[in-house]
Amino acid sequence: MQISTNPDGRPIQTTGPVLVIGSGLLGGSAALALKAAGIEVFLQDISPVSLALARDLGAGQEYTSSSPQPSLVVVAVPPDVTASCVVDALVTHPDAVVTDVASVKSIILKEVEATGVDASRYVPSHPMAGRERSGVAGADRDLFVGRPWAVIHHPTCSPQARVVVRNLAVDLGSTVLEMSAQEHDRGVAIVSHVPQLISSLLASRLREATEDELSLVGQGLRDTTRIAASDPRLWTSIVSGNCGPVVDVLRQYQRELDDLVRGLESGAADGFGAPGSVAAINTAISQGNEGVSRIPGKHGGVQRRWAIVEVLIPDKPGELGRLFTELGAAGINIEDLTMDHSAHQRVGLAQIFVNPAVAKEAEKELEMRGWRIVNQ
Amino acid sequence: MQISTNPDGRPIQTTGPVLVIGSGLLGGSAALALKAAGIEVFLQDISPVSLALARDLGAGQEYTSSSPQPSLVVVAVPPDVTASCVVDALVTHPDAVVTDVASVKSIILKEVEATGVDASRYVPSHPMAGRERSGVAGADRDLFVGRPWAVIHHPTCSPQARVVVRNLAVDLGSTVLEMSAQEHDRGVAIVSHVPQLISSLLASRLREATEDELSLVGQGLRDTTRIAASDPRLWTSIVSGNCGPVVDVLRQYQRELDDLVRGLESGAADGFGAPGSVAAINTAISQGNEGVSRIPGKHGGVQRRWAIVEVLIPDKPGELGRLFTELGAAGINIEDLTMDHSAHQRVGLAQIFVNPAVAKEAEKELEMRGWRIVNQ
Repeated sequence: MQISTNPDGRPIQTTGPVLVIGSGLLGGSAALALKAAGIEVFLQDISPVSLALARDLGAGQEYTSSSPQPSLVVVAVPPDVTASCVVDALVTHPDAVVTDVASVKSIILKEVEATGVDASRYVPSHPMAGRERSGVAGADRDLFVGRPWAVIHHPTCSPQARVVVRNLAVDLGSTVLEMSAQEHDRGVAIVSHVPQLISSLLASRLREATEDELSLVGQGLRDTTRIAASDPRLWTSIVSGNCGPVVDVLRQYQRELDDLVRGLESGAADGFGAPGSVAAINTAISQGNEGVSRIPGKHGGVQRRWAIVEVLIPDKPGELGRLFTELGAAGINIEDLTMDHSAHQRVGLAQIFVNPAVAKEAEKELEMRGWRIVNQ
Repeated sequence: MQISTNPDGRPIQTTGPVLVIGSGLLGGSAALALKAAGIEVFLQDISPVSLALARDLGAGQEYTSSSPQPSLVVVAVPPDVTASCVVDALVTHPDAVVTDVASVKSIILKEVEATGVDASRYVPSHPMAGRERSGVAGADRDLFVGRPWAVIHHPTCSPQARVVVRNLAVDLGSTVLEMSAQEHDRGVAIVSHVPQLISSLLASRLREATEDELSLVGQGLRDTTRIAASDPRLWTSIVSGNCGPVVDVLRQYQRELDDLVRGLESGAADGFGAPGSVAAINTAISQGNEGVSRIPGKHGGVQRRWAIVEVLIPDKPGELGRLFTELGAAGINIEDLTMDHSAHQRVGLAQIFVNPAVAKEAEKELEMRGWRIVNQ
């Protein structure tokens, strides 16, 4: 067997054979990553075409009656069929640890437990690694690198089984987060499902806009509606399995929206500075400040603020290359970046996020090389 | 007088002297740009400190009783004091064209007209060039480059005055959009004010999240809440001057949100696939798809889709430089890009937006040079 390390350089802990059931985006990506680590991978899929495609992409071989019993089964099928597939796997493979990767957890765990199956070998999990493209054609062995991977504990789960699934997540480059199914579902409602729905409802307003109104669009609207382009079928399946927690968050949202609208209605009659409107708007924006400040920074846990260096980029090949080469030559690490383009524009504005300690130096180095720094 | 061209290479049309009233972000930036184009600029501000700072930053000289009469006055004060300032300027400078740059237009135009002043020399306008930082310290002569600039027509406005303000916008690098005050206010309600409020209310939910829940945060939430960090004082002033159009859009939003919550409530009782919940979620996401598809592409007007090439970037200096240099050497133009980082992550995922016709070539070129392309 090939000796290999995970993306962080740690030795691979997972031992095969691994059976991946469902060769879509998540299953396919996991299979590709495990294969690349030298682990024996088998595939199963109700669609013979999907299975053949995954096999031809190098994700593993078809699981047949003569294949060996797996030590780990990864169930990567749509949320609404996950529970029955997990139960089948527990029964069919009596020595295997079974995990699933569905985006909702409580409802599936409840369905599995309701069958009376011994769930001690079942470890529900959820890698936070969705993307806009779906299916095995979008699969990628690096899909999980650097992503949080929730590993769910439940009363009858064996500690040994949990270790196997933790190892799987680490081997694929993820960061393990242990939590209960309820904590998970409330968490994804807040950080994923509600933002998706809110962004969709916001984008829905653009259906009513005129062309002239749309030409006023700037970066703020682009950012807030980017995920509104997501797949309706996939999201309908996800959210319909987490209605309770999503509704809890949306009800709170509704209350604050209603307060705001009431305040604005008083302002609409009175013009600038109507007391009701000013207080309502100020409350909404201030509470938003408070919430957004709680989003963890790139290096996790503690919020960390980067300094922003803004540079004008002519819209022609090689300019970004020159910019970043010159930053690299100056030893300046780029923590993050965004490009800001408006309609009709011939130059772009790059916002480069750097350690605040080197921001001034970065600006000086770039100006020396003829770059136009914005907003010093 | 210095002969100069605007950022698009067109000759500067504006003739001085220009008086800029209010030396904050927009006024300061306009003054810096006009000065750079060789135009005589004078400044006026109720705060002597702000005025001195703007002067010292090279934005122009203080306007005094011995200064020449301006041919153009740019009023760049907060929305709630704009109307009285415009009226004063029309009276004090009887030969000048007067414009303002406030983010709301109808309420100000109404206030100006209500005074009975001759408004034929008044051309309301609005450059769509806000940013998170405010004040003259954030000013930048390139602030308006590539941005839409709304120039407002009203019944008594003289065509000659309109040309002067159009020229100002073009000289500063903006794209002129002509519209009525009502069209403008409805437009900014949809593309700017409502997205700000919606994003703030969404971010507000994070006030209630636990640390564990917050560690699940991904790029979707970061994008949708980025503008929730905006300044409450500024936004309270803006939105309170546009309550009517904002309420109109929010009421429609409220109706769709209420429909969605009702659907989800039926699903919360019945589990996966409850008919009410599935239809409600699917409608919300699909209508979001429809709306977001109407956002104009970077090169304006017609929606244009870029192909996305995704590349893993090790988190160390110079890697992005190498990437973009190599793309530049291959003649591949980068239309836009984003960096996707999660907590704890040691590599980044760069999404490079390119012309679909060259996407395959870009991937091939990068792979030849040892880059890890994701999701081919």
